[in-house]
Amino acid sequence: MIETPPLVDQHCQGVLRTELGLGTFEAQLIRSAGPPAAGTTFFDTQTGFAVRRWCPPLLGLEPHCAPVRYLARRRELGAAEAARRLLRGAGVGAYLVDTGAPGDLTAPKELARAGDAEAFEAVRLEPLAEQVADTSGTVAAFLANLAGAVHHAAAGAVAFTCGAGARYPAALAQAPEPPGPGEVRGAAGRWLAGRAKGAAVRDPVLLRHLLWSAVATGLPIQLHTGAGEPGQRPEHADPALLTGFVRATAGLGAPLVLLGGYPHHRSAARLAEAFPHVHADLGPLLARTGAGAAAVLAELLELAPFGKLLYSSGGRRLPELHAVGALVFREALGRVLRGWVGDGAWSWRDADRVAAMIAAGNARRVYRLDERA
Amino acid sequence: MIETPPLVDQHCQGVLRTELGLGTFEAQLIRSAGPPAAGTTFFDTQTGFAVRRWCPPLLGLEPHCAPVRYLARRRELGAAEAARRLLRGAGVGAYLVDTGAPGDLTAPKELARAGDAEAFEAVRLEPLAEQVADTSGTVAAFLANLAGAVHHAAAGAVAFTCGAGARYPAALAQAPEPPGPGEVRGAAGRWLAGRAKGAAVRDPVLLRHLLWSAVATGLPIQLHTGAGEPGQRPEHADPALLTGFVRATAGLGAPLVLLGGYPHHRSAARLAEAFPHVHADLGPLLARTGAGAAAVLAELLELAPFGKLLYSSGGRRLPELHAVGALVFREALGRVLRGWVGDGAWSWRDADRVAAMIAAGNARRVYRLDERA
Amino acid sequence: MIETPPLVDQHCQGVLRTELGLGTFEAQLIRSAGPPAAGTTFFDTQTGFAVRRWCPPLLGLEPHCAPVRYLARRRELGAAEAARRLLRGAGVGAYLVDTGAPGDLTAPKELARAGDAEAFEAVRLEPLAEQVADTSGTVAAFLANLAGAVHHAAAGAVAFTCGAGARYPAALAQAPEPPGPGEVRGAAGRWLAGRAKGAAVRDPVLLRHLLWSAVATGLPIQLHTGAGEPGQRPEHADPALLTGFVRATAGLGAPLVLLGGYPHHRSAARLAEAFPHVHADLGPLLARTGAGAAAVLAELLELAPFGKLLYSSGGRRLPELHAVGALVFREALGRVLRGWVGDGAWSWRDADRVAAMIAAGNARRVYRLDERA
Repeated sequence: MIETPPLVDQHCQGVLRTELGLGTFEAQLIRSAGPPAAGTTFFDTQTGFAVRRWCPPLLGLEPHCAPVRYLARRRELGAAEAARRLLRGAGVGAYLVDTGAPGDLTAPKELARAGDAEAFEAVRLEPLAEQVADTSGTVAAFLANLAGAVHHAAAGAVAFTCGAGARYPAALAQAPEPPGPGEVRGAAGRWLAGRAKGAAVRDPVLLRHLLWSAVATGLPIQLHTGAGEPGQRPEHADPALLTGFVRATAGLGAPLVLLGGYPHHRSAARLAEAFPHVHADLGPLLARTGAGAAAVLAELLELAPFGKLLYSSGGRRLPELHAVGALVFREALGRVLRGWVGDGAWSWRDADRVAAMIAAGNARRVYRLDERA
Repeated sequence: MIETPPLVDQHCQGVLRTELGLGTFEAQLIRSAGPPAAGTTFFDTQTGFAVRRWCPPLLGLEPHCAPVRYLARRRELGAAEAARRLLRGAGVGAYLVDTGAPGDLTAPKELARAGDAEAFEAVRLEPLAEQVADTSGTVAAFLANLAGAVHHAAAGAVAFTCGAGARYPAALAQAPEPPGPGEVRGAAGRWLAGRAKGAAVRDPVLLRHLLWSAVATGLPIQLHTGAGEPGQRPEHADPALLTGFVRATAGLGAPLVLLGGYPHHRSAARLAEAFPHVHADLGPLLARTGAGAAAVLAELLELAPFGKLLYSSGGRRLPELHAVGALVFREALGRVLRGWVGDGAWSWRDADRVAAMIAAGNARRVYRLDERA
Repeated sequence: MIETPPLVDQHCQGVLRTELGLGTFEAQLIRSAGPPAAGTTFFDTQTGFAVRRWCPPLLGLEPHCAPVRYLARRRELGAAEAARRLLRGAGVGAYLVDTGAPGDLTAPKELARAGDAEAFEAVRLEPLAEQVADTSGTVAAFLANLAGAVHHAAAGAVAFTCGAGARYPAALAQAPEPPGPGEVRGAAGRWLAGRAKGAAVRDPVLLRHLLWSAVATGLPIQLHTGAGEPGQRPEHADPALLTGFVRATAGLGAPLVLLGGYPHHRSAARLAEAFPHVHADLGPLLARTGAGAAAVLAELLELAPFGKLLYSSGGRRLPELHAVGALVFREALGRVLRGWVGDGAWSWRDADRVAAMIAAGNARRVYRLDERA
């Protein structure tokens, strides 16, 4: 048996506080541009099957029970109690919570209380800029306030997170260096003049400025990559497109953590091999690929140095996703490493050591959690 | 054991009626720009080994017998009787036949009779346009006749099929919307003026017009993707390049079925997850990867919703390919799903249900076969 | 059991003659732009684990012993004796040595003596051009001397090797044909005027000229592809980008061997399927992916004709890498083929035959080794 310490879930969001009907629950299972096609259901996916395998027992039901039965039991317990049982069943010791997600989600402390775990904040750069823009009258004030806000966030959070890697990899590839001050002022002026209150920042120059402001703090930066949201361009999913930015930030002190990357996760592993400051995340692969997770995990373990891989659930909105991420991870990691020990390729001792690194140790080191707790 | 109903082979062509020598037979096994390299044979491929495993027993020989022995037995039986035995050994209940392939191939009804199955027609758009061009005197007549021909084809066929996704993905990526009427007239005029009778349509504007004419009928459209023909540009093989077209056709009613995709089949699965009207085909992977098919199939099953995956053989010219597709599929699907049930990840009941969906149910729903039969 | 004949290692470099400390040894294990990140070591990689599994027993220690213990034993034996034991433990019958690598490395004959094997030379084109440039006074002399040097190299070597496929795939994609004489003269003039003595050739026109000069000799050309050196652009790693060059060289007589390709190795296999003169190398995948090598090898065996796959270790500097490549290869190939025989998909006879082809027979045929020995 491969034993792991309590996990560090290095990338997740809060959970919904409200009761959920079958349709609302189902809509959170996969990342789709629309409702299920006629004659199909999102429960008929690896994520759906993984939820039905792992979650019913945590609420006192048989594994693989029908979705309608599971949802009835969930309502019977209430959303808060169900979340409590699911999160505590996951064996997680610490959460890094992306607090920039929209919706009425639990804050880090609330998630920590429900899950009997520590919680740390990862600040998403785009909403930070949007909040600053909402309260700044001029371009100069916006840029000064933004610098202050990034600096202030760095003092309280353990990481920044940014979607520019997934949305503008081509912009980052063509111009990996920090934009000049005049360029930034121009872009900020155009954005502030044209935006409605609360509108999202999408300007590539401003996003590069945000990223480089974050790099300057030395805090780790989580970069979204891979085929995630339907709005994203899948031909931009390969983390290899971030190589220019990776090279430009080498040696500056801020670790980069590549989130996702699937189906180009081997490129993320390759970057983690080639650049000392790059790390690869493996979480969202787990709940999304379910029964197939061991194979995907083995692919990440081909090239990535074992000190550079970090567990996360990628869980959001449904506590089921936080729990399934953790339970699929332990199962898949155990299966892969036991296999390699059985082949004689790895020793038990090394397998246990690597499992502990990926489960928790690497994240504790990269995010300096033991200094922040 | 995983049981499947009689398969729906949702993409294949007819089979050759003539007797085949060793060299002619071998040349159909893989998709090569030339004859085997000196010192090698196309029989030394996964497809060749799969044919030698599965087909000799259907003709009364030992599995893995030598190619020359197999071909002798095939000639002894005659091409028609060999085809009859091979097709009936495949356990296929219905074929969707692409009738646009060149060569002296069996028509759908003939294939159905030989295989004791139903047959439906999938109309390939390019040859349809070429036939219309051969008999239309002016640009206006060509466009009117083409509209009529697409409309008429939609009444008799269950699907359209088109190679533009494989040959012009960049054109579709840059201009996913329907071309304007003036643009279409210009392109049609240039093509009609320059073409020899029977010449292939390769103009990207016309191909987009064909695709959008097909979309308007609401019939499912099978789009070729992936590394197929040697003449195709392999750097264009990623179905992710079709995302713009996929997004432009969302919600219009016509399902899209992405054929092939290998080695980027995970991108096809991702599109099937992200867009309700997109489906992924898994057939050509099976006979082409043979003993390795279970691993490739498992990769497709990572992200694709189980209601969006469709079996096909991709068989063409040799009835061996229709048979091997079906037999490899059952073997590989059984192996993958039994493994997941054995791990506790899936229930038997779900495994049987998903097997039936991929084998036949999804195709029956998407192509409305039960209304057409 | 799958038996293989003595291997032909069709792509490696010489080994370091000097004693190595822990840090110097570790630095050779993976291809990184910098030293290990704080808190990590390159020994915690698949390559590090594979070295610790396979090499200690060849030097009389327990497998998986600690790196510091292994290095102490290596120093005790001396670099030469350690190399002798490691190379002889690999079961290699012939090495093709890329003699263009920088550093104080053993020459082919020395490697052959140490490993009790044959050795053949693969001439790297870039250093050949650089040596010619160092001793040529004019553009005309340079081009004439270069033609002579390529011709002369072809008489003594069994292959050329070239990095342009990895460094300039976009240039090769846009201009796959041989550059014209005026273009070559212009590029040579600019390069000769601007270069310091010994400076590397990076001009895409000159690299294309080198490649086409090599093609004209008819000797096999080994093209580097895939995610190799950190200096390379990972978005250029897909061998599919070489399709234009592959098509342009079809039928001219010079075999192409695609080195590496990971994580796009399936594209390399696809090119080997589609073009008679293309072959795929599988070596560097083995020592780099270690315990995961069987899965990667199985992926290469999906589409590549079995007569087109060639073993190599990709070993360089450390004889451990030559040995690990060979030992991982035999283990992984045996595991994959035994599995397929066990499934009934392959016969034992075919498995043994294919193992012998990949291990040695294909390389002996492609490089005409039996005529050169």
